[in-house]
Amino acid sequence: MFDSANFKHRVGKAAYQREEARLREQLLNAQFDLHQQRGFPVLILIAGVEGAGKGETVNLLNEWMDPRHIHTHAFSEPSDEERERPANWRFWRALPPKGEIGIFFGAWHTLPIIRRVLGKIDEGEFSTAIGEIRRLEQMLCDEGVLLLKYWFHLSRDQQKKRLKALERDPEQSWRVTDTEWQYFDLYDRFIKICDPFLRRTSTGEAPWIVVPGAEPRYRALTVGRHLLAAIRERLDQPAPKLLADKTPPLPAPADRINLISSLTLDQPMTRPKYKTELEKWQGRLNRLSRDPRFKELSVVVVFEGNDSAGKGGAIRRVTGALDARCYGTVSVAAPTEEERAHPYLWRFWRQLPRHGRFAFFDRSWYGRVLVERIEGFCSEADWMRAYDEINDFEDALIRHGSVVVKFWLAISKQEQLKRFNERKAIPFKRFKITDEDWRNRKKWDVYEQAVCDMVDRTSTATAPWTLVEANNKLFARIKVLKTLCGALEQALDRVDRPKKAKRP
Amino acid sequence: MFDSANFKHRVGKAAYQREEARLREQLLNAQFDLHQQRGFPVLILIAGVEGAGKGETVNLLNEWMDPRHIHTHAFSEPSDEERERPANWRFWRALPPKGEIGIFFGAWHTLPIIRRVLGKIDEGEFSTAIGEIRRLEQMLCDEGVLLLKYWFHLSRDQQKKRLKALERDPEQSWRVTDTEWQYFDLYDRFIKICDPFLRRTSTGEAPWIVVPGAEPRYRALTVGRHLLAAIRERLDQPAPKLLADKTPPLPAPADRINLISSLTLDQPMTRPKYKTELEKWQGRLNRLSRDPRFKELSVVVVFEGNDSAGKGGAIRRVTGALDARCYGTVSVAAPTEEERAHPYLWRFWRQLPRHGRFAFFDRSWYGRVLVERIEGFCSEADWMRAYDEINDFEDALIRHGSVVVKFWLAISKQEQLKRFNERKAIPFKRFKITDEDWRNRKKWDVYEQAVCDMVDRTSTATAPWTLVEANNKLFARIKVLKTLCGALEQALDRVDRPKKAKRP
Repeated sequence: MFDSANFKHRVGKAAYQREEARLREQLLNAQFDLHQQRGFPVLILIAGVEGAGKGETVNLLNEWMDPRHIHTHAFSEPSDEERERPANWRFWRALPPKGEIGIFFGAWHTLPIIRRVLGKIDEGEFSTAIGEIRRLEQMLCDEGVLLLKYWFHLSRDQQKKRLKALERDPEQSWRVTDTEWQYFDLYDRFIKICDPFLRRTSTGEAPWIVVPGAEPRYRALTVGRHLLAAIRERLDQPAPKLLADKTPPLPAPADRINLISSLTLDQPMTRPKYKTELEKWQGRLNRLSRDPRFKELSVVVVFEGNDSAGKGGAIRRVTGALDARCYGTVSVAAPTEEERAHPYLWRFWRQLPRHGRFAFFDRSWYGRVLVERIEGFCSEADWMRAYDEINDFEDALIRHGSVVVKFWLAISKQEQLKRFNERKAIPFKRFKITDEDWRNRKKWDVYEQAVCDMVDRTSTATAPWTLVEANNKLFARIKVLKTLCGALEQALDRVDRPKKAKRP
Repeated sequence: MFDSANFKHRVGKAAYQREEARLREQLLNAQFDLHQQRGFPVLILIAGVEGAGKGETVNLLNEWMDPRHIHTHAFSEPSDEERERPANWRFWRALPPKGEIGIFFGAWHTLPIIRRVLGKIDEGEFSTAIGEIRRLEQMLCDEGVLLLKYWFHLSRDQQKKRLKALERDPEQSWRVTDTEWQYFDLYDRFIKICDPFLRRTSTGEAPWIVVPGAEPRYRALTVGRHLLAAIRERLDQPAPKLLADKTPPLPAPADRINLISSLTLDQPMTRPKYKTELEKWQGRLNRLSRDPRFKELSVVVVFEGNDSAGKGGAIRRVTGALDARCYGTVSVAAPTEEERAHPYLWRFWRQLPRHGRFAFFDRSWYGRVLVERIEGFCSEADWMRAYDEINDFEDALIRHGSVVVKFWLAISKQEQLKRFNERKAIPFKRFKITDEDWRNRKKWDVYEQAVCDMVDRTSTATAPWTLVEANNKLFARIKVLKTLCGALEQALDRVDRPKKAKRP
């Protein structure tokens, strides 16, 4: 990857000034159009060797364009806020919305490379990290992000010269610390790791662009020209046409026997028994939430289910057992404008709880493969790839040590009708029933199939779905509480065990 | 993945017969249309547990449709032909062309799963294998293959019952050997490995379809209906439109200093010196090719270069040193009709040499990122993804133990003009110069940039590009011979070292 970048390049001062003036104007225009259209976000990753002009180039970009719409993030040591979330949380929260430009110093590639160079992970773990990076970037590209990855390169001699020059300059010497020299000693190993890394994470849609870093003017023009061409090309494209659909259909089952239809939805639970059980399980949940080990965990609970299946009521019985300071509930409706300007998982990433806390999702990211699938709010290709993306998302949560619990509350079609009619009749419940609920009801069978596909494709050993027979609300609530307590107990037990270090 | 498939399904005989008659007709029609259109190949992967009706279903498909256009391949122990090529060679040679249906029993997923179940590879190696499978299948889908993956499932009890029933049946008992019972003992471990495997290799374009295998009629209808829907959906689509181009441009360098322009193309080599050197290196190459260790290697040599740079002459000086039985030369021109009916790498896979043999490619798969890029024979998205695909392809060769040597023969624009004019003037060389050569010459600069991008993105530690200064043909030929001898010597040295087992 670095063959071309090892040459000595030079751009004359006069030639540079002429081109810079033109480039600035064109970049500013492109940025303006980008902001007006709000068609896609631009995410620029800045990486490469020390002393190759990364900071200077980013400063220049901020100088050339309107800095109000450029959001620069340098990721070094994670904050305590960040440490208590999955590793990629900090990148997600910094993602630029459509129409804006984000610049990331040291994004998701940094840690795997450094750990591999220092020998802290082996080739297999490095491969796994590369696979994750490819899937993450693929997803961002599929969601419409223009992802530009610049790798600033210096040859070994160039780097040595550059570090020495910086040291001599009293204004710049702060840039060179022991870390820089320590990494320089590892130069050859660094290149040996990075060269294949760059190739293996270069895809058609997100190739690494290697920037020769030694000469400031050449470097600036290389990045400036490429950035301009990339934004302009995407801006001036006609609106994306419908793609040739390469997604095969999911099978239509040859009978009606499935995960949902096989449930016995009417389950016994008398009110007196319910009261005793409720007290028992709420008490247990409360004690679990006050367990000292709970401070090392976070819990993510998903409630999905038929309309009027009792999600809200079940959530209230759970939160009723908890200290209000240790949970948040997230009610998921149609996305806001800000949320629509980001990849669909963004609004869920931002709601992930810190350690020692619960997040209860009343509907969730599974909307992608339920309502969005059925109502055609996204294309078939979009919801088909979502199973994989959701599994990756939950896997990131679990590897971070979160507990993921997922409930599908199932009621029968008749029971739903009864509840709809009740809601219509009771004045203070009338707001709970809308025309949309009646429309959804007409699509009962396709929803049922979507639920079965969802469970089949996203129920994992570590984040299983629990199907809750919910014709009897009392039974459903107790099953929810019980399941949650069980999952939490298991997770607390794991806290005791010696943990593998998750971070270097 | 298996939740839904564990249910007991049944389709009545009468209902089955009614539907089967209709399904057969529709499948046959779809197959006919597929064959007429020749728009895409259909590749069906058949996998899953023993005794779940895989063979019966494939027989049924052959019965229902026209078997002349269905190509069924069962992959078990590799043949010696196959053993001497990279592991995926046997799948590539069996790929169906556009308009045909291929059925693979036990494709690329089988070996990683079995090795993981038996504990022969660890989780990291399994992850690496999963990454490779995803990239291979992604490439097939990008190339237009309709990839359908059916996983035949039985619950533990169902499998036991089924194996016993087969054993009792004198006509069927041959199906059940010790291997089947041995795998049955591993049922739980098998499921524990396969469940996440299926999820991690299910993408939007190539999801696994789990088929409940216990009841023959239900199973048959599930596969038949899905196959019909999938082929029909793709057939009836309007011709794929131009996609929204998500590929960013590659950078236009800010000066003319690059890998090619920095070469000193005129290199000294007198004819007397050439004669001595030629004899010396041809002799050495010949001895290397007769080294007993060479029987464990194969050598793939790529010659690319400017028009009239002397590729053919260089190849003849190399082959002149070799026994005609130990090499083949492949002259790559525009693809044939058969080749166009396959993914672009197919025609190169089929030419891979056995052990103890050389293959010399006069032009190669790099056409994708050279002539096809520049002439617009494929889309930008196609050639941009090709760097990654080519790296994967060569990586497969190298992991198999092949030696990959790549030459770019570079001449100056003036030297080319001189040679073109000479060719025009000499009657027996006139056939070597066409209008196309003159047209290509006009695009000198864009070709030069494409060559630099190619070298930067595909020159690896294990398969590096060698740039050959070729204004002086004599010098070029000697450099080619020397480089080849060097690469071969290194590879032979590696044969001596204790090897890791490449196959179980």
